[in-house]
Amino acid sequence: MGRFAIRKLQVSLVAGAVAAVLVMQTTPAAAQQPAAGAMMKPAAGMMMIERSKILTQPGVFGVFTMFKLRPDWDKVPVAMRKGAAAEVTKLIEKHKNNVLVDIYLTRGLKSQYDYFLRVHAYDLAKAQTFMREFRSTAIGKNSDVAETQVGLTKALNYITKDKSQGLNAGLSSASYTGPAPRYVVSVPIKKDAAWWNMSAEERLALMEEHTAPTLAYLVNVKRKLYHSTGIDDIDFITYFETDDLAAFNNLMISLASVKENKHHLRWGSPTTLGTIGTPENVIKALSE
Amino acid sequence: MGRFAIRKLQVSLVAGAVAAVLVMQTTPAAAQQPAAGAMMKPAAGMMMIERSKILTQPGVFGVFTMFKLRPDWDKVPVAMRKGAAAEVTKLIEKHKNNVLVDIYLTRGLKSQYDYFLRVHAYDLAKAQTFMREFRSTAIGKNSDVAETQVGLTKALNYITKDKSQGLNAGLSSASYTGPAPRYVVSVPIKKDAAWWNMSAEERLALMEEHTAPTLAYLVNVKRKLYHSTGIDDIDFITYFETDDLAAFNNLMISLASVKENKHHLRWGSPTTLGTIGTPENVIKALSE
Amino acid sequence: MGRFAIRKLQVSLVAGAVAAVLVMQTTPAAAQQPAAGAMMKPAAGMMMIERSKILTQPGVFGVFTMFKLRPDWDKVPVAMRKGAAAEVTKLIEKHKNNVLVDIYLTRGLKSQYDYFLRVHAYDLAKAQTFMREFRSTAIGKNSDVAETQVGLTKALNYITKDKSQGLNAGLSSASYTGPAPRYVVSVPIKKDAAWWNMSAEERLALMEEHTAPTLAYLVNVKRKLYHSTGIDDIDFITYFETDDLAAFNNLMISLASVKENKHHLRWGSPTTLGTIGTPENVIKALSE
Amino acid sequence: MGRFAIRKLQVSLVAGAVAAVLVMQTTPAAAQQPAAGAMMKPAAGMMMIERSKILTQPGVFGVFTMFKLRPDWDKVPVAMRKGAAAEVTKLIEKHKNNVLVDIYLTRGLKSQYDYFLRVHAYDLAKAQTFMREFRSTAIGKNSDVAETQVGLTKALNYITKDKSQGLNAGLSSASYTGPAPRYVVSVPIKKDAAWWNMSAEERLALMEEHTAPTLAYLVNVKRKLYHSTGIDDIDFITYFETDDLAAFNNLMISLASVKENKHHLRWGSPTTLGTIGTPENVIKALSE
Amino acid sequence: MGRFAIRKLQVSLVAGAVAAVLVMQTTPAAAQQPAAGAMMKPAAGMMMIERSKILTQPGVFGVFTMFKLRPDWDKVPVAMRKGAAAEVTKLIEKHKNNVLVDIYLTRGLKSQYDYFLRVHAYDLAKAQTFMREFRSTAIGKNSDVAETQVGLTKALNYITKDKSQGLNAGLSSASYTGPAPRYVVSVPIKKDAAWWNMSAEERLALMEEHTAPTLAYLVNVKRKLYHSTGIDDIDFITYFETDDLAAFNNLMISLASVKENKHHLRWGSPTTLGTIGTPENVIKALSE
Repeated sequence: MGRFAIRKLQVSLVAGAVAAVLVMQTTPAAAQQPAAGAMMKPAAGMMMIERSKILTQPGVFGVFTMFKLRPDWDKVPVAMRKGAAAEVTKLIEKHKNNVLVDIYLTRGLKSQYDYFLRVHAYDLAKAQTFMREFRSTAIGKNSDVAETQVGLTKALNYITKDKSQGLNAGLSSASYTGPAPRYVVSVPIKKDAAWWNMSAEERLALMEEHTAPTLAYLVNVKRKLYHSTGIDDIDFITYFETDDLAAFNNLMISLASVKENKHHLRWGSPTTLGTIGTPENVIKALSE
Repeated sequence: MGRFAIRKLQVSLVAGAVAAVLVMQTTPAAAQQPAAGAMMKPAAGMMMIERSKILTQPGVFGVFTMFKLRPDWDKVPVAMRKGAAAEVTKLIEKHKNNVLVDIYLTRGLKSQYDYFLRVHAYDLAKAQTFMREFRSTAIGKNSDVAETQVGLTKALNYITKDKSQGLNAGLSSASYTGPAPRYVVSVPIKKDAAWWNMSAEERLALMEEHTAPTLAYLVNVKRKLYHSTGIDDIDFITYFETDDLAAFNNLMISLASVKENKHHLRWGSPTTLGTIGTPENVIKALSE
Repeated sequence: MGRFAIRKLQVSLVAGAVAAVLVMQTTPAAAQQPAAGAMMKPAAGMMMIERSKILTQPGVFGVFTMFKLRPDWDKVPVAMRKGAAAEVTKLIEKHKNNVLVDIYLTRGLKSQYDYFLRVHAYDLAKAQTFMREFRSTAIGKNSDVAETQVGLTKALNYITKDKSQGLNAGLSSASYTGPAPRYVVSVPIKKDAAWWNMSAEERLALMEEHTAPTLAYLVNVKRKLYHSTGIDDIDFITYFETDDLAAFNNLMISLASVKENKHHLRWGSPTTLGTIGTPENVIKALSE
Repeated sequence: MGRFAIRKLQVSLVAGAVAAVLVMQTTPAAAQQPAAGAMMKPAAGMMMIERSKILTQPGVFGVFTMFKLRPDWDKVPVAMRKGAAAEVTKLIEKHKNNVLVDIYLTRGLKSQYDYFLRVHAYDLAKAQTFMREFRSTAIGKNSDVAETQVGLTKALNYITKDKSQGLNAGLSSASYTGPAPRYVVSVPIKKDAAWWNMSAEERLALMEEHTAPTLAYLVNVKRKLYHSTGIDDIDFITYFETDDLAAFNNLMISLASVKENKHHLRWGSPTTLGTIGTPENVIKALSE
Repeated sequence: MGRFAIRKLQVSLVAGAVAAVLVMQTTPAAAQQPAAGAMMKPAAGMMMIERSKILTQPGVFGVFTMFKLRPDWDKVPVAMRKGAAAEVTKLIEKHKNNVLVDIYLTRGLKSQYDYFLRVHAYDLAKAQTFMREFRSTAIGKNSDVAETQVGLTKALNYITKDKSQGLNAGLSSASYTGPAPRYVVSVPIKKDAAWWNMSAEERLALMEEHTAPTLAYLVNVKRKLYHSTGIDDIDFITYFETDDLAAFNNLMISLASVKENKHHLRWGSPTTLGTIGTPENVIKALSE
């Protein structure tokens, strides 16, 4: 089924009719910073982190850290648990010139972790400092780190205007039109040696086959890519937001059905499925 | 032996003589909701979850969560342990407009978990909310999550009236005639890239070979399928109920003996074997 | 060396000169039930479990459960530890109309578990009930389950009188003549898809090659087979008793040296090596 | 992209124009020993460990040990935690005639460990003694060892003046010109049997293909190699320091893109990413 | 390099010039039993275990058990910890007619365990009894078993006088001339089905290729072999003692470079590297 979709889409691409942006600014309602407060801070020459910029620029580090609450968390006095969300909010405020912090709720959907942080920074050391301080908060102290993934954003390197004009136009002329995404999916990827040993042309051809079926999903699935080769045991982190998991399931079947999939040493494992909320609300949900 | 069975069945299929429903409404005595109570609730515009519908419709999420009791559970005061079943029953009642909850007993049959929940919901976020609240119950607090699998029901996509008339007729003209199933088996499946890269026709041919030997077991094994590609690290969750484990063993040998089996990256691991009971009875059995 | 042995044995098989029973009644002195007590029970229509029958019949479930004592066991008061063996003996007596229970000592020979139970039952749910109650005993409460394997006995399906007359005669005309076995070895097996996709004839040929070298060991190694496809993540549990581990090592090298071995996805992992004793003595050895 | 870089570099190599030192003395500001104190010690015939020598000589053992703080560390009284850095510094001073100790901070960037030690010694037993005593310090007692890797430095054995003159010249005529590295990356490697079964000539050819793209990174990535075959379950530990992780990511993509990569049974897993500091500062950061 | 060494050695073997003993009596100073005390015991018909015999005879069981100290060990009162070494020494004395016990220190060199026991016995059940009692000592109670490997010694079966005269002569005419070994390395091995399915002649040829490069290391590496097929999940335990780890690293590279290495399903994992001492000193080092 995915294969049929591909063929149809390739036709429309040749015709230049598909238009969409694949890598888009992710601005879930949940994580919008109050613009006013943001304007006041950067007094002493500090560069304010702007959500809309840091989420679209290349050269930005992303640190994904999955946490599991220890059973002891249930035994922490209610008052301290209730203060957990405010403490985290305050910490995020303290570091807002250094990092952008998103927190997602996975409890109930994943076995190995209950929530995860996605931290963006221009300087990785600053993300590390934030993460270290997070682990000294009440909830951080009562959580085990189950998984950490580190990646780096880069400019598109396959489906560019020069190399693949039709698909590139497709990527830039459609955009997400669904309701505010409630779900997040994060999928780490490792390619095999045969993949990396291909010529650039061979890989481009496979990436074109990969990209074609994804265009139809630009309207209901947002996507972002991080590069990790050498700085982590994976090559990529692919990050998705959607409100339509059935569509997302079909998108992923499409991606399973192309030749590139034969070069995945790891695709997921873990696939992380969670729900999107403000950091405050996510921590509150875990502190009840 | 399985192979001989296949050949015979394929003949009768051609003759159109086999008739059975493979994917059927699962209504274990253990989990029937009182129809009257169900009728009274949906006052304020709420849609009541109807067992017979949600278990047969496409577009329904299924969350399977396997739990292991911590040793501390034995040290919880008897009174609190004794109240565990009632607390869970009450929580299920509270969420009955959002989720359908089944609980199965695996203690004694599996090493990594003692019981598991199968939660159905039209909205995955509601299943997550239920699961989060379950983990705040007395038994939930004393359990570790060993495994979570998330899937989605869909309409049949291979053995349809159009694509495979004979087998489709076979699937819809026989039904379960055994005693009320006492056993549940859940088997997660991940297919390889070669499988997904086949043409739709090639996969249909393999699914026909797969389906033929299963027809003979429609009378003593019930089956249900969930799709998970991209929303979990598996492609499918196959769920079975039976009272005849020897027949089930033969069914699974038949499925091991077809070419599709060469495309399983994961088939089980874990295979979950448990017994069926009401949520109340399962929790009671764990609270003695 | 194993290969030479095979060739020689195949010759004698053709001549019909080899005679032995491979699957035999296992009656270690350690586990004999007092016949008198057994005669008195089945008053109210209950079927007494007879060791000699249940260990040789098809259609019997076998549950193997490996346990590891938690460090806390050392801190349990001596008096309670000393009562552990009597408590287990009493529980076995309570369930004697439902299950046959053997317990083996692995502490000192295996890293992941200290002892294991082999429970036989005509009805799997009854084995589960026993296992659940065992886990509420003093020693059960202080043990973690490291591994559970479930299987089912069946009639011989390859080396039958019809299909393989010479080898079948070999299997039935020799028997164990060594001293009472002191050692138990249990080996779970999973075959690959290529194995199950072979024709019955191809598999028979490989099973004949497999069986031939085992005949020489009928005199010093006892063996029993359980089928697990679909009810567990393995296809078979092979169970051995011997007093001669050097002979057993040679037997297993013979089995490694035949083509069937190329179809093992799993052969052991874990191989369980333990010593045989009465349940009482095994529990006592762990309670000192 | 990496492939294009390779081709260009190979050309310049043939022309003999590339000049750089690949294996260089690593002297992060963080770890420099006061030269004066070093001069005073070797009174009683003891050989002082000189950082600049031990980091460049062959025949030196390197022990990498990754530690994870236990949750209990948070409950250790503040006073004791505050003394941890001084205690470690004192221990390093005590052993300074036997071992060279570096400590790196991974907390916030890795899930399985919070910091790691790299200990160099001419005599492995002395590194072991230091490590044993470290584990009796306050922080050592509250840490679990997550990973240990042992290796040995050797003279270059592929890209030597004799075997590969052009590349050897390239390696020795460029040097690190970036800012003091803030990041450390450690990558264990295991090669497959096919690699070791190649002729020396075949491996040399592949190592030349491997080395060529690395020359361009001599200016911003430092590198050191340890050999581990037989003394650990890996063949090599590759150790890197850099201040430019984007460049490092490109270097590693280049290395993924050569044929040698087809012979990696293990490349990373774990890849360790951390930040460089003095032992005192790293321990302090973990003791706040 | 290893390959060149192999060729040279094969030449000298043909010439019959190489002479050495590969499997030799291991008598580290650390583990010698006082001969006098040994003479006094065997009064009541008991057979005294003689180190020099039991380490060279076939038909002897070897049990390797790796232990990790639990964090609680640090909290055991100093007096009890100080008594640990004497308690173990006394236990060894008690069992000296049944088992030979060596203890090695791995703390600081391995992550998963701190020390390991190698126990030899003619009767495996006696080794089990010793191990069980060891686990009731103060240090045993505070240790977790991380790994157990069981093997059996046998006469040489490939490089015999009959089958491979030149190499056999090589093995028996050189001997260890280095300083008393300070290091121990233990490497479990599992061969693949293709290996066991070879003819005896094919395996002999590969074992000759394997043996040739090892002859040069008879002077600085001692070796001992245990067979484990069927009694454990490995086929062999190879045990080495050396004082020259650089030579050992070269030996292992030689063994990686022969065709036999293509048949290793497992070679190490874990490779255990430790230091040699008397049981008393090893336990003391862990009790400080």
